[in-house]
Amino acid sequence: MNNTLQTIFNHRSIRKFTKEKLTTEQIYTIVRGAQKASTSNYMMAYTIIGIDDEETKEKLATITGQTYVKDNGHFFIFCADLHRVYNQASKTVQEKMQVNMENTEQFIVATVDTALAAQNAAIAAESIGLGVCFIGSIRNDIKRVDEILQLPQYVIPLFGLAVGYPDQKPEQKPRLPLDVVYHENKYDHNLEQIKRLISEFDQQIRSYYQKRSTNTRTNTWTEQMIRKYCEEVRMDITQFVKDKGYNKH
Amino acid sequence: MNNTLQTIFNHRSIRKFTKEKLTTEQIYTIVRGAQKASTSNYMMAYTIIGIDDEETKEKLATITGQTYVKDNGHFFIFCADLHRVYNQASKTVQEKMQVNMENTEQFIVATVDTALAAQNAAIAAESIGLGVCFIGSIRNDIKRVDEILQLPQYVIPLFGLAVGYPDQKPEQKPRLPLDVVYHENKYDHNLEQIKRLISEFDQQIRSYYQKRSTNTRTNTWTEQMIRKYCEEVRMDITQFVKDKGYNKH
Repeated sequence: MNNTLQTIFNHRSIRKFTKEKLTTEQIYTIVRGAQKASTSNYMMAYTIIGIDDEETKEKLATITGQTYVKDNGHFFIFCADLHRVYNQASKTVQEKMQVNMENTEQFIVATVDTALAAQNAAIAAESIGLGVCFIGSIRNDIKRVDEILQLPQYVIPLFGLAVGYPDQKPEQKPRLPLDVVYHENKYDHNLEQIKRLISEFDQQIRSYYQKRSTNTRTNTWTEQMIRKYCEEVRMDITQFVKDKGYNKH
Repeated sequence: MNNTLQTIFNHRSIRKFTKEKLTTEQIYTIVRGAQKASTSNYMMAYTIIGIDDEETKEKLATITGQTYVKDNGHFFIFCADLHRVYNQASKTVQEKMQVNMENTEQFIVATVDTALAAQNAAIAAESIGLGVCFIGSIRNDIKRVDEILQLPQYVIPLFGLAVGYPDQKPEQKPRLPLDVVYHENKYDHNLEQIKRLISEFDQQIRSYYQKRSTNTRTNTWTEQMIRKYCEEVRMDITQFVKDKGYNKH
């Protein structure tokens, strides 16, 4: 297995970092790595905001409920951004652009561009000995994050990425069986087979949770997923995204 | 620079492949690499569909207008998928889940999960000597792609990934200056500085397009972006995504 595959296959989320801060060189390597990702129609429809201001980190940690949002080597927030392109146009041209900007197509473009860049950032960071953790919980109070970062129209804070030197060695979390996730030529509607594979995975996960060194628990993947989807979560996101100018018609 | 960074920094999209097909081992390495990416709340909210059936490839190539959608070593389609989780629940529980499924939050979760996995797939492929090209143009006729792949409710075909042995050596396309894309602690509202940096980039791009070996042209990044946003594109996506059960309230 080559070094790149080793980096990819060795991934685990790190939730405890040493106090050591990233150097500017490390930050730039990560950001430049992110920029190398493919981008839809060359739009590069994202902005990455690096947070090292302690007060801002404190606020974000409160919103997310995760201490490693402030206790890390550097914190990045990945934002979908079509404001940059919009802003290059005159008022008259902006009016013409409006109908596209408001189409869900452009929300897909910006979200996918941002995530491709972010995964490159994660791999780049891990390749130089750093650990990472994606932070979706900045969406716990997306309006507040929007205010803190002073984001203009057409810019949405999608997720954070905490980066730093690992101060823990967590087990690697299993993944769904390949045959559940990978289908051939069309969607696999063999529900019996899929359910059987997921059921085997559920047993594996129950045993993983019981054996792991921290935060042991007893439920299965299916139980976890169903519980999560039965609790209403972040119900303000649909309206927030619309208010930002996306997904409107 | 380590091997992983070299892989990341050496990326260019490949649009011409040799006739050599990927082996099953290569396909599995790519898919397992994809699966190692971080996933929101452990949802793994994606399905990857590998296409090697020639007739299906032909249909997809027609939709996308890109010959390398059929002429490659393997073609993958990355789908956002919450159907898997939904399908694990009983009818009564599904009704309880509905309100979350229809929230844009879950569309973000599934789209980001899918893209993180896809970028891992791309890097994994490149690390073993293959070339890749992301294919957003499957969304040119997303309903037709949906039919061809027989996708159920809550599954959306986001983009393709053509993979194979490169049969061309394209130049690397420049990226926006780091200071345009990377901001510190809050969104950078210094428009004058951003516009100046983009203007310099525009000159660089004009010169890149004039000099590159194929498909030379004369416009700038800004001109390209504005032109693209002034033409209505894929206007059926908003409704399609809603019909699939997402972004509804």
